[in-house]
Amino acid sequence: MDEPVLLTGASGRVGEAILRHAGEDFAWRLFDREPVPRDRRPSRVAADDVFISDVTDTNALINAIEGCKAVIHLAGDPRPEAPWKSVLENNINGTQAVYEAAVNADVDRFIFASSNHAVGSYETNERTPAMYRSDDTYRLDGRELPRPSNLYGVSKATGEIIGRYYHDNHGIAVANVRIGNLTEGHPPIDYERGQAMWLSYRDCAHLFSRCIDAEYEFEIIYGISDNDRKYYSIAHAKETLGYNPQDNSAEWQGKERIVKKGE
Amino acid sequence: MDEPVLLTGASGRVGEAILRHAGEDFAWRLFDREPVPRDRRPSRVAADDVFISDVTDTNALINAIEGCKAVIHLAGDPRPEAPWKSVLENNINGTQAVYEAAVNADVDRFIFASSNHAVGSYETNERTPAMYRSDDTYRLDGRELPRPSNLYGVSKATGEIIGRYYHDNHGIAVANVRIGNLTEGHPPIDYERGQAMWLSYRDCAHLFSRCIDAEYEFEIIYGISDNDRKYYSIAHAKETLGYNPQDNSAEWQGKERIVKKGE
Repeated sequence: MDEPVLLTGASGRVGEAILRHAGEDFAWRLFDREPVPRDRRPSRVAADDVFISDVTDTNALINAIEGCKAVIHLAGDPRPEAPWKSVLENNINGTQAVYEAAVNADVDRFIFASSNHAVGSYETNERTPAMYRSDDTYRLDGRELPRPSNLYGVSKATGEIIGRYYHDNHGIAVANVRIGNLTEGHPPIDYERGQAMWLSYRDCAHLFSRCIDAEYEFEIIYGISDNDRKYYSIAHAKETLGYNPQDNSAEWQGKERIVKKGE
Repeated sequence: MDEPVLLTGASGRVGEAILRHAGEDFAWRLFDREPVPRDRRPSRVAADDVFISDVTDTNALINAIEGCKAVIHLAGDPRPEAPWKSVLENNINGTQAVYEAAVNADVDRFIFASSNHAVGSYETNERTPAMYRSDDTYRLDGRELPRPSNLYGVSKATGEIIGRYYHDNHGIAVANVRIGNLTEGHPPIDYERGQAMWLSYRDCAHLFSRCIDAEYEFEIIYGISDNDRKYYSIAHAKETLGYNPQDNSAEWQGKERIVKKGE
């Protein structure tokens, strides 16, 4: 039996995408304050592998993380408009708690769900809406300093920095995935920004799978599909992680949805 | 009468340096959990200008910040070894509270006491102790991503990002001063690292004074004296802020202290 991967926030939308398209590829421990719906649980997940708790509940977390080879940390308040008190506790404090448990349990790698909102303020009035369009060449690549567009984005940029500390000082490998606009089935409609940063469910699951399997030290990468117009580079994720996205929001533009084999 | 500058953490060591060497140059509001010793209070500071409270006490903060043209935010747990719970509450939550009060009161500028510990993990085993010595050319300039050496450093890097958010989204000018090794009178003895990042009291006061008076939008600068060997660049602070440091740790090496006129 493989060593399991701890998936915090397993009941959320990113967890749904991962479990739907990569659920059978790994052994899992599922952790969330809300139960993971039964029909989303991979077949190998037993009742003992499911934890209904908060990541700041140290005892539950220690039990869940014991023996895991990796953590995918998705838990947190996902609302861009979340108030400070909530992101301070759920996102910042929660992330530090999971890192602390991970290094204490000698987990090898930590995959953190960061967000486009960590850099949302690069979308200035001068640059938008031009930067969302295919004749524009502006691009971020993950080496830029954070510029959050909201306090949720502050909490995600902080999570990246917490990871930098634990990587440098405790040796754990860290991948920060700045997730774009994750939607099921098709890209957002009539929303250029969301189309440029679209992440399909299957590309999401594939990218997180690569973060479980590939070799790296500390990475900040963008989690988007291979959209024709993108202002986030995915070159580094392709090169370092072997990310090979299948979807492209341009395929839906002005057309009926193109149904791909195997979907 | 000038509009005052709110000085949080006024009773601490950075506050001492600022008040000793620039206390008579500005009108102040002094804010600290501990009383500012009477002999450190500038002559124009009245009883009404002194606030003994915590920055997370919203009412006290609103009263203190009303009508101020600038904030110098020094308050926080200053210990590099401070535990997470303390830096989360005192440094991260405290800094957000002061920013929120500052933008609500239409304060023009915010000067944040960041720290060398926000980037301490650039000092890798491979680079040290060579990087502390004058034949080494390694240098950080403030455009690098944070690499904290401890959780205190995480909290300071987070304070910089909180400032980035408030600058981009609320228009307040922000200067982040990554303070080196502040000691009174002479540089640290037998401590190469501390000598390379020495900040004298008078250079500290001068640098914060420039942050009150100069024009800028968002800056991350290093707060050190003009030491012969430095691995933090002060070129940008000189150029943008008119920082003109008077001290140099090399002047103390292997010599009696050189007493300068006016000290």
